[in-house]
Amino acid sequence: MHKALDGVRILDLTRVLAGPFCTMVLADLGAEVIKVEIPGIGDDSRSAGPFIKGESSYFMSLNRGKKSLTLNLRHQEGKAILKGLVNRADVLIENFRPGTMDKLELDYSVLVAENPRLIYAAISGFGQSGPYREKPAYDFIIQGMGGVMGLTAHPGGPPTRVAVAIGDITAGLFAAIGILSALRERDVSGRGQMIDVAMLDCQVSLLENPLARYFATQEVPVPIGNTHPTLNPTGAYPTKDRYLIIGIGNDSLWKTFCQVVDRKQWLEDERFTTNAKRTENSAHLGELLADLFRTRNTADWVELLENAGIPCGPINTVDEVANDPHVDFRKMIVSIEHAIAGEVKMAGVPIKMSRTPGAVDTPPPILGEHTNEILQNLLGYQRNKIKALREKEII
Amino acid sequence: MHKALDGVRILDLTRVLAGPFCTMVLADLGAEVIKVEIPGIGDDSRSAGPFIKGESSYFMSLNRGKKSLTLNLRHQEGKAILKGLVNRADVLIENFRPGTMDKLELDYSVLVAENPRLIYAAISGFGQSGPYREKPAYDFIIQGMGGVMGLTAHPGGPPTRVAVAIGDITAGLFAAIGILSALRERDVSGRGQMIDVAMLDCQVSLLENPLARYFATQEVPVPIGNTHPTLNPTGAYPTKDRYLIIGIGNDSLWKTFCQVVDRKQWLEDERFTTNAKRTENSAHLGELLADLFRTRNTADWVELLENAGIPCGPINTVDEVANDPHVDFRKMIVSIEHAIAGEVKMAGVPIKMSRTPGAVDTPPPILGEHTNEILQNLLGYQRNKIKALREKEII
Repeated sequence: MHKALDGVRILDLTRVLAGPFCTMVLADLGAEVIKVEIPGIGDDSRSAGPFIKGESSYFMSLNRGKKSLTLNLRHQEGKAILKGLVNRADVLIENFRPGTMDKLELDYSVLVAENPRLIYAAISGFGQSGPYREKPAYDFIIQGMGGVMGLTAHPGGPPTRVAVAIGDITAGLFAAIGILSALRERDVSGRGQMIDVAMLDCQVSLLENPLARYFATQEVPVPIGNTHPTLNPTGAYPTKDRYLIIGIGNDSLWKTFCQVVDRKQWLEDERFTTNAKRTENSAHLGELLADLFRTRNTADWVELLENAGIPCGPINTVDEVANDPHVDFRKMIVSIEHAIAGEVKMAGVPIKMSRTPGAVDTPPPILGEHTNEILQNLLGYQRNKIKALREKEII
Repeated sequence: MHKALDGVRILDLTRVLAGPFCTMVLADLGAEVIKVEIPGIGDDSRSAGPFIKGESSYFMSLNRGKKSLTLNLRHQEGKAILKGLVNRADVLIENFRPGTMDKLELDYSVLVAENPRLIYAAISGFGQSGPYREKPAYDFIIQGMGGVMGLTAHPGGPPTRVAVAIGDITAGLFAAIGILSALRERDVSGRGQMIDVAMLDCQVSLLENPLARYFATQEVPVPIGNTHPTLNPTGAYPTKDRYLIIGIGNDSLWKTFCQVVDRKQWLEDERFTTNAKRTENSAHLGELLADLFRTRNTADWVELLENAGIPCGPINTVDEVANDPHVDFRKMIVSIEHAIAGEVKMAGVPIKMSRTPGAVDTPPPILGEHTNEILQNLLGYQRNKIKALREKEII
C-alpha cells in the first residue's frame, strides 16, 4: 500500500534511542531506512535485555520497518561504500558525539561534496557547537540540566526523572520535523543542508509554562506535584484502591461535581464558591476530597464522574495501558512476526493518516539482514566482491 | 531570509497547547500560520497569567510568528469566510473535542469538498474514533492514563505528573510530522488527506523501554525513581548544596571515577568490580556514594568529574536553564519586541538548519491584528465589507 514517505531513502547511522526513534517514525510513514551497523556487534541496543529467544525486545521495539546493513566505517572500503550509498540517499542521520564523523572523515563537508542534495541530520546531547559540545550526554543528565527533572517532584520532595526518555524522544521528533522540512525545501532549491538537533535545546523548548512564568515574573518556578497552579480542584487523589485524577476547571463543573458526589453542602460553603476561593483554600479542600475519594475504588469514581462529564481518569500501569480497550481500538498495540523471536508486540503508529496510513509492515531486522540486497541492488556489487568484503570484516 | 517552509499556509483553529505548539514549530521554520480566534475573546491561553502589561506571557510564548484573524465560526458568514480561506490554504489544523467541527458543519468532509488538496489535521485527547472519543482530556489525565505518570515516581512513593505538558507537546510534534509527510505526499498525488493525532496514542508511543519490557516478560514495570535498572552507579545523588547526576555505564568509567574521587579502595572491593556486581550491591554502593557526594557542592563535583570524562550534570532550576552559557550560545533563549508588552523573552528554535535556519522573526499577534490584512489580501474584501462584518461581530 502507498505510504506518505514512499521514495525517501534514509541512511541511518544512529544507535539506541533518539536517532532510532526518529527513523522509526519516518519508516512507519513509508521511508526506506537503511540502518548502518557495526559488523558483528550492531546497535548497542541489540545487547539490551530483556530478550525474546535471544533478540533484544528493546531493539526490536525501536527498529521495526528498517533494513540492516553492516559496515565498518573505520575501514577505507567501508567509507567508500558509505559514500556510494550517500550518492543514492536523500537523508543521512547520525547521533554520535560531535566530532566522531569528523574523525571518520565522513562529516557533512565531506558527504555534501559527494551529494549536494544530501540532508544530513545530527542529533546529539548538546549540539554541534557551544561550550558543552563534547560533554557526554545521557537522557537523565539532559532531563536534569534542562529543568524538567527539578520541576517533576512533589513539594519539598526529591526531583524525579521522567520514567521515559523524553530527552531522547523529543529530540528524535524535532529531528524528524527538521528532516521533512529540509526535504520540502530541497524540492524547491535542489540543495540539501545540515540539521543540528541538540537534546538540551529541545528540553528548553519543552519548558513552556514554567519558562514563560519565569520570564514574566522573575520568580523561579517550584515543583507543584500533581496539583494545578490555578485550577482547583485538579490533580491526583488516592482512592480506596489506587489513584484518581480529576480536572475541574470552572465553577459550572464544580457544581456538577458536588451534586454527583453527593456533597451539596460544599456548594454552600463560602470557601469554595469560586475557583479563586477554592485555590486559596486548596489545602482544606484537598483534605475533604482525600476523605471522600478514599471511600470507593477508582473504577467506581471514574464511572460516576465520567457519566456526569467531569474530566477524570485513572493512573494506569503499563499492562493496563497495553490492554486498554480504547488503545486496542486505536490499533496502538501491534504485533509483527520476527523470524527468530516469533510474534512480537510493540506500540503502533500514532500518526493516523486517512489516505496513506502508516503501518508496521516489516519486522525489526536481524543484524546485517539486508547487506547483500543493498550492496547488490543499490551499488551493483557482484557476489564475489561481497564475499571478499565479508572476509575482510568490512561488512 | 528564506526559510524551509516558505509558501506553506496553515489555517490554525487550535487553542492553548498541543495545536499551538505544533503550529509554532512550523511557523518558526517559515510556514505562514493564520490563527483563527473567537472575536473579542481569542485563544483561551490569552487569559492565562502571569501577564506582562496585560498580555499573557503563556500565550505569547506559544504564538510568536503567527497572524491573528478573528472569526465567528457559528455565524454563516463566518463559515463562508473560513471556506474561502480553506481554498487558499494548504493545511487546516484544529484541536477541538471530536464532534465540534461536525456541529459547526466544518468537518473534514465539508472542507475537502471546498479544497481537495487540503491537509486537515485534528489533535484531540483520545482521537476521532474509539470508545473514549468524546471523553474530555487534559494533559495530566492523559499522562495518568498513558502510563508515564504512574512510572514517574520514587520506589514506594506517589506517582508524579511530568511538570511540563508532554501529553500535549508530543502530540503537537507528531502532528507536525504528519502534516509535513502529507504535504510531501500531496506533491506527488495532488490530494490532501485527514490526519488524526490522539494525545493518548502518542503516550503509548513514548512508553519505549517499559512497554518493551512488559511485552517481553509480562512483568509490570514499577517506578525506579532516579536510578537505572542495569547501569550502576547511575542516578541523582544529594550533594552538600543540591543534587548531582552521574552516569557510569561501564567498568572503565568506574575505574576512572574511583581514582578521580580518591576512593581507590572501592576498586579493590569485590562487591563493586563489575557492573553486574555493582547492580547487585547497589543499595550499599548508594550509601557510600551518598556519604561521598555530601562532602562537596554540586559545581565542584561537576568540574572534577567532567574533566575526567565522567558523564555528569546538575539538576537545574528554570532560571539556571534560562541563564546557562551553553543555552545562550545555542540561541535557545530569544527575545522579540511586542507592541504592548515590550521586549519578551522565550525559548528559541531547537531545529538548527544550516542553509535555511528557522527564526523567531515576528511577535505573537494581538487579537485580530491581521484580520483586515488577511481579508483584503487573501479574499479581496473591500473596507466597507470588512466594516460591516466587524459591526455584526463576525470578525
